[in-house]
Amino acid sequence: MAQFINAKEDLVIEAIDGALRTAKGRLSRLDGYPHIKVVVRDEWDKSKVALVSGGGSGHEPAHVGYVGEGMLTAAVCGDVFASPSVDAVLAGILAVSGPAGCLLIVKNYTGDRLNFGLAAERARAFGIKVSMVIVGDDIALPDLPQARGVAGTLYVHKISGALAESGADLDTVTAAAKRVIENVASIGMSLDTCTVPGSPKEARIAVGKAELGLGIHGESGIELVDFTTARDAMAVVLERLKPHAGKGPKVALLNNLGGATSLEMSVLAEELAKSDVIGDIEYLVGPAPMMTSLDMRGFSVSILTVSDQELALLQTPVPMRDWPDCLKIDAPDIRLIPEGLTPVKPIPSTDPDTAAFVGKCCDLFIKAEAELNALDAQSGDGDTGSTLAGAARALKGSIDQLPLSDPTQLYRAIGLELSQTMGGSSGVLLAIFFSATGDASSSGLPNVEALKAGLTRVQEVGGAGLGDRTMIDALTPALEALPEGFAAAAAAARTGAEHTANIVKAKAGRASYISEERLSGYNDPGAEAVALLFEGIVRGNLIEAGRVTK
Amino acid sequence: MAQFINAKEDLVIEAIDGALRTAKGRLSRLDGYPHIKVVVRDEWDKSKVALVSGGGSGHEPAHVGYVGEGMLTAAVCGDVFASPSVDAVLAGILAVSGPAGCLLIVKNYTGDRLNFGLAAERARAFGIKVSMVIVGDDIALPDLPQARGVAGTLYVHKISGALAESGADLDTVTAAAKRVIENVASIGMSLDTCTVPGSPKEARIAVGKAELGLGIHGESGIELVDFTTARDAMAVVLERLKPHAGKGPKVALLNNLGGATSLEMSVLAEELAKSDVIGDIEYLVGPAPMMTSLDMRGFSVSILTVSDQELALLQTPVPMRDWPDCLKIDAPDIRLIPEGLTPVKPIPSTDPDTAAFVGKCCDLFIKAEAELNALDAQSGDGDTGSTLAGAARALKGSIDQLPLSDPTQLYRAIGLELSQTMGGSSGVLLAIFFSATGDASSSGLPNVEALKAGLTRVQEVGGAGLGDRTMIDALTPALEALPEGFAAAAAAARTGAEHTANIVKAKAGRASYISEERLSGYNDPGAEAVALLFEGIVRGNLIEAGRVTK
Repeated sequence: MAQFINAKEDLVIEAIDGALRTAKGRLSRLDGYPHIKVVVRDEWDKSKVALVSGGGSGHEPAHVGYVGEGMLTAAVCGDVFASPSVDAVLAGILAVSGPAGCLLIVKNYTGDRLNFGLAAERARAFGIKVSMVIVGDDIALPDLPQARGVAGTLYVHKISGALAESGADLDTVTAAAKRVIENVASIGMSLDTCTVPGSPKEARIAVGKAELGLGIHGESGIELVDFTTARDAMAVVLERLKPHAGKGPKVALLNNLGGATSLEMSVLAEELAKSDVIGDIEYLVGPAPMMTSLDMRGFSVSILTVSDQELALLQTPVPMRDWPDCLKIDAPDIRLIPEGLTPVKPIPSTDPDTAAFVGKCCDLFIKAEAELNALDAQSGDGDTGSTLAGAARALKGSIDQLPLSDPTQLYRAIGLELSQTMGGSSGVLLAIFFSATGDASSSGLPNVEALKAGLTRVQEVGGAGLGDRTMIDALTPALEALPEGFAAAAAAARTGAEHTANIVKAKAGRASYISEERLSGYNDPGAEAVALLFEGIVRGNLIEAGRVTK
Repeated sequence: MAQFINAKEDLVIEAIDGALRTAKGRLSRLDGYPHIKVVVRDEWDKSKVALVSGGGSGHEPAHVGYVGEGMLTAAVCGDVFASPSVDAVLAGILAVSGPAGCLLIVKNYTGDRLNFGLAAERARAFGIKVSMVIVGDDIALPDLPQARGVAGTLYVHKISGALAESGADLDTVTAAAKRVIENVASIGMSLDTCTVPGSPKEARIAVGKAELGLGIHGESGIELVDFTTARDAMAVVLERLKPHAGKGPKVALLNNLGGATSLEMSVLAEELAKSDVIGDIEYLVGPAPMMTSLDMRGFSVSILTVSDQELALLQTPVPMRDWPDCLKIDAPDIRLIPEGLTPVKPIPSTDPDTAAFVGKCCDLFIKAEAELNALDAQSGDGDTGSTLAGAARALKGSIDQLPLSDPTQLYRAIGLELSQTMGGSSGVLLAIFFSATGDASSSGLPNVEALKAGLTRVQEVGGAGLGDRTMIDALTPALEALPEGFAAAAAAARTGAEHTANIVKAKAGRASYISEERLSGYNDPGAEAVALLFEGIVRGNLIEAGRVTK
């Protein structure tokens, strides 16, 4: 699988520059590419303790995303999954350290320990006060005293960072970092490996399996476990963390390892919140990509038992978007659904003429079922006739329930009836037509104008216009001609319907997916239905029975 | 590939609840699961125009992530890639609409148009003022008048949302939305398809190819193009957008379709910023996942030419993390690297005794090269002897450059020399040892104590302690015994070195990866080197030549 990169050797420097472009002027970098890739805070007066972290790249937003007020002062970046050089670390220290000194926060990997460690020595030779803490929060390998540093490192950045920002001295900041390191425990689970730029992806994990206790550099998990559901996955992870959790209120940091979707991460957050494997997890940081492993479809959970002071430091706001805040886990807030979802039934009323007119119009559609189906078979699935006839039968069956004596309410009632009984797009569009006609009628428009307003709404919502081979091609001219009488309307509808046989480039509706050859010579079934309706009204001398021209 | 979900039919509701748990109490949902999945703003007094959007899920953070102050008032969620029902949309409208009315922002898909459209009719029957705009910003299919709605929809949310929040009336908010819709153009490119939950992933795009003009529901791109670099990919996308870009200052919205890494998105941002295909792109929204297609490894760019007022509305701050701000694109801010990276060369000084002592110590290592290599071959790659001998030769060669008359500076100078000439972890650790010894010495500690301080630092940085089968096992007892003389120190070092042959569970360094059988019976080469050094000093009667016991 290819990736959106240029040359592999330029990847990290181009990505840093891209990140700096939109850093709101908060960040700078040192002028040492490609060897020295160091991002520093812009506003920094060195009277406070500087925090320098970093390591290999591929864990974005760590660490550049956490440089800023209240967290890191500098991030020293190596190439993907490779430790930065001693010179790069030293440059970072020298760039930001003043009289208050500097805390190095290092994830426990040999290269990082050594290079940060030697850089610290070289900085001390300049008289700079430097302390260094090593984060080893990964509990995956219990027998290894050298636990790896993973996402728990973020707690150190945040808590020490907030302390340093408040003006605490180096010893205080260092002690706080060490306390976090002693108390934090993390473990990850993944359903797929990551894709290292320039290298083929290793298809290591079979479907139905997950790796537990993976590293953030593509290292295999210590265990291959069965994977069933997000719920079980979260339970397994929390079970492993449980023996490491202290007493008291806890924060969970839910980290996306890079490739899990937002939907998955939200489901995992829900499972974490509902789980009782570890009691008293009261706060959550995330879910968010915080310490990723490129595009790995996985997550990690880092648990920290916090003091009141630590919680306050965790919750101090910072301007960096990549720190997702530490929030109290609340149950979802649920509101009653508003009234009105069950439509108010119209109050029935009688009007024998209108009942007869509506009934006979319905009969016209019922009678035309087979004919319209056959026409529709040319351009679709051959059900236009049945759809219309079905709706007509339902409408006819409920005619006694309609507000027949009130035209405005009648339009709305027909719209409601069609929305409930007529399927497909055409059912929705006809429902909109009658509802909108009723609205227009209620505002005092005469009938023909109200019908035109309904048609306009249908065009807006449906997106079809004249010439798009839909019922609009018959209905529009019919409504235009209607003031001259039903005969004129019927003739106009017929002309419009016949014209659709020549429209072979349908631009809307289902016919837009059909080949031109199949469409040519056949009327659009919707337009034909409109023409048949108006012709039927004229032929059956139904005009007198209705009120539509009023 | 499996995903972190439970039952597919519960995916969206569980994800919504997960998102609500950490919404800072800003969001609620309506009590209508599973049919009605509507998220609403908590603080909302209905005196302002409500903004309701939504559609199928799978595009997170759209749309729930944009519900909040200054953007949406409600998000109506369908299942993955499926339109929400009319009832759900109506519930959303009714829940948030008051006298000021409601704007529906709908992406141009038939199901969404119809369901939002009919819901609007039903809401109007309650007397609610509802207007509806349809976003069709996708330029991929130029002949289709019904362009799809994609990430450009975010501009409509933000600009209309900021206007509505400011108290503008429905007509004003609607007109602003329509102007954005007329002016925005988007297109996407992807290197891989998305994984629809519960369905197998379609491996559609070959390596070296990319789809241009894809949809956000897994629809294929309109074109399969060659993929070479991020630079070319961005150029192709901008070329397509260029004819749609108006005159004046432009904003680009750089959207991660879900599966591109942060590194890739930053590289694409850099390419976008550097490109001159479309002039005057002055502002950038993102890069961020904003309108995703599940886990698709792709991006889209949406270009909007903005008025001053629109820019101000785009830049109004909102509390939702998922809106990444609209920032001026600036060139990366670059600072000079600090002085001090090129270490100050120590000022040479002479001291014949010290020169002789150091030279002869070096000779000891040069002589032991083969012996130590052979020992190292048991537990590693057989180069410990050569590494030490090489460093010894270099040190001997530069002996005239050393500050031989000043012990403190001499330790530091040896540390510096080793950091520059001796490779591998051992080179760094010995450099740290001598540098830290120099530091301790400079603070007035006597020699043995300074050496012990150096050793302590090595243990902190390297992470190895006594019993971990490293040189520490010989050096620690040697330094402890040194006050009693070099003979005692040599004997202690020898005992320590011999003891390492029994340590078969190495906990640090390379030997921790080697099987117990291979290690048993062989001294650690680092510890052996220390023993050989002390024994050599005694045997060669070098004590008088040096000052180490002073």
